[in-house]
Amino acid sequence: MVTLEDTLALAERLHGAHPQRELVLRLIRNTGVRTRHIVLPLEETLRQPGFEQRNAIYGREARRRVPSVVEGALRKAGLRPADIDAIVWVSCTGFTMPSPTAWLINTMGFRFDTRQLPIAQLGCAAGAAAINRAHDFCRAHPGSSALIVACEFCSLCYQPDDHDVGSLLSDGLFGDAVAAAVVRGEGGTGVELEEDAAYLIPGTEEWISYAVKSTGFHFRLDRRVPGTMEPLAPVLDRVAGGHGWDAADLDVYIIHAGGPRILNDLARFLAIDPGTFRHSRATLTDYGNIASAVVLDGLRRVFADGGARSGARTMIAGFGPGITAEITLGTWTAPAGEGP
Amino acid sequence: MVTLEDTLALAERLHGAHPQRELVLRLIRNTGVRTRHIVLPLEETLRQPGFEQRNAIYGREARRRVPSVVEGALRKAGLRPADIDAIVWVSCTGFTMPSPTAWLINTMGFRFDTRQLPIAQLGCAAGAAAINRAHDFCRAHPGSSALIVACEFCSLCYQPDDHDVGSLLSDGLFGDAVAAAVVRGEGGTGVELEEDAAYLIPGTEEWISYAVKSTGFHFRLDRRVPGTMEPLAPVLDRVAGGHGWDAADLDVYIIHAGGPRILNDLARFLAIDPGTFRHSRATLTDYGNIASAVVLDGLRRVFADGGARSGARTMIAGFGPGITAEITLGTWTAPAGEGP
Repeated sequence: MVTLEDTLALAERLHGAHPQRELVLRLIRNTGVRTRHIVLPLEETLRQPGFEQRNAIYGREARRRVPSVVEGALRKAGLRPADIDAIVWVSCTGFTMPSPTAWLINTMGFRFDTRQLPIAQLGCAAGAAAINRAHDFCRAHPGSSALIVACEFCSLCYQPDDHDVGSLLSDGLFGDAVAAAVVRGEGGTGVELEEDAAYLIPGTEEWISYAVKSTGFHFRLDRRVPGTMEPLAPVLDRVAGGHGWDAADLDVYIIHAGGPRILNDLARFLAIDPGTFRHSRATLTDYGNIASAVVLDGLRRVFADGGARSGARTMIAGFGPGITAEITLGTWTAPAGEGP
Repeated sequence: MVTLEDTLALAERLHGAHPQRELVLRLIRNTGVRTRHIVLPLEETLRQPGFEQRNAIYGREARRRVPSVVEGALRKAGLRPADIDAIVWVSCTGFTMPSPTAWLINTMGFRFDTRQLPIAQLGCAAGAAAINRAHDFCRAHPGSSALIVACEFCSLCYQPDDHDVGSLLSDGLFGDAVAAAVVRGEGGTGVELEEDAAYLIPGTEEWISYAVKSTGFHFRLDRRVPGTMEPLAPVLDRVAGGHGWDAADLDVYIIHAGGPRILNDLARFLAIDPGTFRHSRATLTDYGNIASAVVLDGLRRVFADGGARSGARTMIAGFGPGITAEITLGTWTAPAGEGP
């Protein structure tokens, strides 16, 4: 575990002479991230062993850490591996071909006719995109179920030679996580998915990006990114309105915790109580920005709270490179006789 | 354009002293590939400028070459960019984040709420997978349409220091291509998609893979790959049978042209005339193995032939890393009053 104090001490040690030292430290403090989990020991993470080695570590750690998370998701959904018809694997922090879905099928008892959908290029929006595409699959194949796995080892994209403010902020913001969820074609408890939408903010293609180099993926974060809730709040309004809902008056919000300003601004532009996003804030505080896994962790927190009341109107929104928003609307459902 | 003669002369020049020179030359001759198109001049392709530069070339050449192909696909489908609800981008030969779908939306007049589905990790199976996922999307969103773009610049994965037989064969087999197609939720001419399926051959995860290194993607091809039609033919049989069809007695076959033995073996195991796969053979002869673009080029050739008769039972099958087969079944349809 890496604490905020560890991160600040590290920033001082490595970048104490940085011309924008004060700004960097303030930005890191303002993230609200208290603790993060990373797959390697901190000192090892700080080294750059090369893209090949990083990808090997990604594969090794995925094999170690994903199976138990997948088992937990299946158990909670009341399904066995053989009940799964599609696996959506989302991850932007390692690249393998074949997709890790092949390994999952070979080792965890999934059927050999399970569909595989790996998505590597949607970044932090991929968690909500995975929900939407899994939902498409289940609507197209009635009665089927899809497993979503988000495997994000952001620490493996740490680049010791990137010293711009955006990189240093990112070094203090992102964390590692594995999350999994099941979209059931029928039955189960959770969000009954009803509507999906996506939106690309025009002309912001360069704002969140990877520079792909011999050293691997270099995350590039433009200073204008935190301001993107101004154009996106009206989109969420419109999508909710199209579903007959008011985006300012929903029951459950699971919003990508890209950073504190994302959450503060979105609450402000939607004119809702900032406390409404408490699950996203808790993810940010406990784990940092865990990319595509944020929205799945938000869902986990709603379940851990005892779930929402039956009928609770729920919005899930992921934001990532493009700049793209992926949005899901649904209604909380609980089996007859259950519910909080 | 690179001819077979160019390739053989090059193999002689670069690998004349290779201990398995004769085998390599014979394998290349046996591919049946007569010509290939590559995005850079041959001598430039042979250099390895590094992963960063390769990816930059990928982005530059995609921007140059994709728009006219997309325009052609839309024109043939009778749709404008604003009619498209989802873009599926498949490519395993370059990696960008954001996905190139963001650039397409920003520059070609697609709606900003177009869904983006980039798939990078399914290799040669991704063309058929794209058709299947586009079909899921259209079934889940009745009346919508999806654009598929396959952008494969395999020559940018040429690795001058890989001298194993599998690599040298691949150097003589793969070509570059851009292809696009539209899946319409309703209307249009072509294959009315009915059934999709996938299959992973157990325990073959290492047979087709990328070694991801600081120099980029290194294609690894196991010598057992050409033999994979033996386990896959029964799968195609089963999938066709489940649809009430006989895999040995369909009207149109659009099969991934991974190499000549794939096509010969599949014809043999399905007990059909090898000439049946003439479109796939023509793709291989004219362009080489163009990865996920093969099945789209096969479709193009059926259209160029005047299309199939209305009601023609059609199978599309892509094979790629995993080892994964992605299969689509559908029936040729033509607007009333048209048709061959």
